[in-house]
Amino acid sequence: MASSFEMDRVSKENLLASLSDIEHSLPGRVLQDGHTCASHAHTLTWIAPQPPDAVVQPRSTAELARIATIASKHKVPLIGFGGGTSLEGHVNAPFGGLSIDFTKMNRITAFNTRDLTVCVEAGVTLSALNHYLADTSFFFSVDPGAGEATLGGMAATRASGTNTVRYGTMRENVQSLEVVMSDGRVIKTATEAPKSSAGYDLTHLFVGSEGTLGLISALSLKLHPRPQETAVVVAGFKDLNAACETVISAIGSGLRPARIELLDDKILHAVNQHSGTEFPELPTLFVEFHGRIGETERLFQSFEKLADRHHSTTINVASDPDQREKLWQARHSAFSALKTAWPEATVLATDVCVPVSRLSEAIAEAQADIARLELTAPIVGHVGDGNFHVLPAFDGSDERQTQAVMELRDRLVVSAHKFGGTCSGEHGIGQGKIEYLEQEAGQGISVMQDLKRALDPHNILNPGKVVRL
Amino acid sequence: MASSFEMDRVSKENLLASLSDIEHSLPGRVLQDGHTCASHAHTLTWIAPQPPDAVVQPRSTAELARIATIASKHKVPLIGFGGGTSLEGHVNAPFGGLSIDFTKMNRITAFNTRDLTVCVEAGVTLSALNHYLADTSFFFSVDPGAGEATLGGMAATRASGTNTVRYGTMRENVQSLEVVMSDGRVIKTATEAPKSSAGYDLTHLFVGSEGTLGLISALSLKLHPRPQETAVVVAGFKDLNAACETVISAIGSGLRPARIELLDDKILHAVNQHSGTEFPELPTLFVEFHGRIGETERLFQSFEKLADRHHSTTINVASDPDQREKLWQARHSAFSALKTAWPEATVLATDVCVPVSRLSEAIAEAQADIARLELTAPIVGHVGDGNFHVLPAFDGSDERQTQAVMELRDRLVVSAHKFGGTCSGEHGIGQGKIEYLEQEAGQGISVMQDLKRALDPHNILNPGKVVRL
Repeated sequence: MASSFEMDRVSKENLLASLSDIEHSLPGRVLQDGHTCASHAHTLTWIAPQPPDAVVQPRSTAELARIATIASKHKVPLIGFGGGTSLEGHVNAPFGGLSIDFTKMNRITAFNTRDLTVCVEAGVTLSALNHYLADTSFFFSVDPGAGEATLGGMAATRASGTNTVRYGTMRENVQSLEVVMSDGRVIKTATEAPKSSAGYDLTHLFVGSEGTLGLISALSLKLHPRPQETAVVVAGFKDLNAACETVISAIGSGLRPARIELLDDKILHAVNQHSGTEFPELPTLFVEFHGRIGETERLFQSFEKLADRHHSTTINVASDPDQREKLWQARHSAFSALKTAWPEATVLATDVCVPVSRLSEAIAEAQADIARLELTAPIVGHVGDGNFHVLPAFDGSDERQTQAVMELRDRLVVSAHKFGGTCSGEHGIGQGKIEYLEQEAGQGISVMQDLKRALDPHNILNPGKVVRL
Repeated sequence: MASSFEMDRVSKENLLASLSDIEHSLPGRVLQDGHTCASHAHTLTWIAPQPPDAVVQPRSTAELARIATIASKHKVPLIGFGGGTSLEGHVNAPFGGLSIDFTKMNRITAFNTRDLTVCVEAGVTLSALNHYLADTSFFFSVDPGAGEATLGGMAATRASGTNTVRYGTMRENVQSLEVVMSDGRVIKTATEAPKSSAGYDLTHLFVGSEGTLGLISALSLKLHPRPQETAVVVAGFKDLNAACETVISAIGSGLRPARIELLDDKILHAVNQHSGTEFPELPTLFVEFHGRIGETERLFQSFEKLADRHHSTTINVASDPDQREKLWQARHSAFSALKTAWPEATVLATDVCVPVSRLSEAIAEAQADIARLELTAPIVGHVGDGNFHVLPAFDGSDERQTQAVMELRDRLVVSAHKFGGTCSGEHGIGQGKIEYLEQEAGQGISVMQDLKRALDPHNILNPGKVVRL
């Protein structure tokens, strides 16, 4: 994939000059051993790893700015590295260069209970933040399902997850960012005012830019008051359409679920096998409601009425924390269940998102393609957002199967576009989806290229990702 | 103010060439009479009007793209004009050029009740949209208090208003935009999928860019289900601090008010005089709750408890539509009340926004400045967002008073910045706040300039607004 970019690998001279400058001005920050370099290209992606030439661990924004200034001078690529949990080759170094590892920038610097914000350095992990907030009245809502993900990485990839339908993605939950530009300038993208009409929206320009326009060094994040009550309903449906229609009714009638997750019959089978649960193996919604005391019961009763109209079978309602936890563990075990059922399989996680009104059709098309291509590919989805993942499990050494999976991947995107949707709901573009983004954005790609050239004129920030130049 | 920009007024030759090209390819779209030109610079701003050389009324995106291509060729400024309700000189033509009047692009093109979206051309007014939605189960939440504002203009200025604390500003309520670039390219900024991690966030790049990066030609907007119940509580407080502390507690405890408006004693006095109401003339919160059946009563009871802790006097609770309407009419009459109390006064509407935790201090500083400067200047605010307006009423022909008002304006921004806030919560930058934005954004200004140069290389899109080049 990298070969389609017109760019040369960084020259040995420039690389060595940059490393020497960094070592001189910031001794001890550079790691060059093969294992460390390899580990910074080894992520959850299906794309072959392309390790960086070295790994640099800045300890502050000032150090990161110094490194960017040096890299800019020598035209050496800088690739941001957070938790290494991205899925589309985001952290690969196709042209060599330096992996910027945020491990040492891991301080939580402010917690403001009156404004519901928390300030973190980019390397703070989601699990560290959640741990920090555990005994407070507030929580951070974005949960991509990988605790080791860093907040900087999550902002850079516009991460989301199961809570999005109510609380939004990183797009809605970042108050402001501190960003180091390709030439070493340090900017703050916004003030701490909850709203603003002062100038261009720099915050949202960097959220989701995957380290190609700037390197996020610190974040101010929005928190939410913990709900007084939480209830989970699990409901099975005779077919996917009935499940999707229930989702549309629930959202349209203002029930404001906190999560609506869909699991298809195949993945419930795997979950039952793996977790010893006995869910009927039907298309099933896991729905969570958050509310004030006395509110969630009325919410899930309203939901059950809607679901009844679509002939659902309510399987379970859980209000106490242990029961809820068990249900969500079952949901989250979907991926491990799949790996347990077929240990040697390669599992590719696809990710498309369509308007909720078209979800049922999009999933039906996916199922038809899966059958035609003779693949094993369960489906899970954050269906309140129209976002779903098809998870083909296949023998990566079998060329026919691999081809079939790649065809499925293409078909999912064609279908998503046909239904007014996007090639990526939450996994980003990285290296893996550049062509899909081109199909999607049309002339918008030329605007993205204009932005990239303007903010990173030497193409040193995560080159070969998001847009081709 | 215009003189501080290094740009010449468009030459007569270029202007005439562009008008001739437009007339040739789109006969009948150009208006050049003095009255029309003057009316396109006469807005609610305190800044002196600078009329365009001509007004052009495209009837479609294709026509607008044609006009942009012609203007780009001849380097003639294009200034978007919606409802003419902006407050900081946004629609002035300091270098001449063409006002793009969206009056004829006023179609509502799609209403999707299953995805809660509505698609409109940029010239649809807020009141036309609200009228269209009146008998449906859905509403559009953004309400800047000017029905004649257009949706294109509201997106371009990142408008907000009283509902923001719960439903967000235009930033949160635009699904996607169609934008005509300075060279005539037409792009769509996003798909219709509710979330996406596919590439740079072009939607938010254009929301709030005030027509300086592209001209918004159509919008897909997000709708909300109408609440089953609405209740309004009006509560008076012994001082501003008690009112602000109540707001902080209400938000922090998850009460999710739909609106929290603050009126100070002075404006309540004017309102009582104007509307014949008998509100105690105290710092007063108007709070609205939206909920499902049975929910709002519990919400306002919880709110009253919080307010009680801060020694409030509950003045009124209104659940039926007529009573509510009366209360909000009183609130909305604040500006007219001011004008009635002092008919010949000039009223300047300032607009700053701070973190809610600092609101009480910021307002106290404003009050001290008002007293020191011997001004009459009531305060109203969307205090759930930390946003407040000081409304000095003064004799515009009195130099001392005018100077004092300008000093107050500066002081408000200095104070907002000191408290971590912004120079503009919802009125934008236009011509009036460029220097304030420079003080606020620091190095971020250079990034904004990079963006402007990249997307509008000839500086023909609303030149002299937002950023200086």
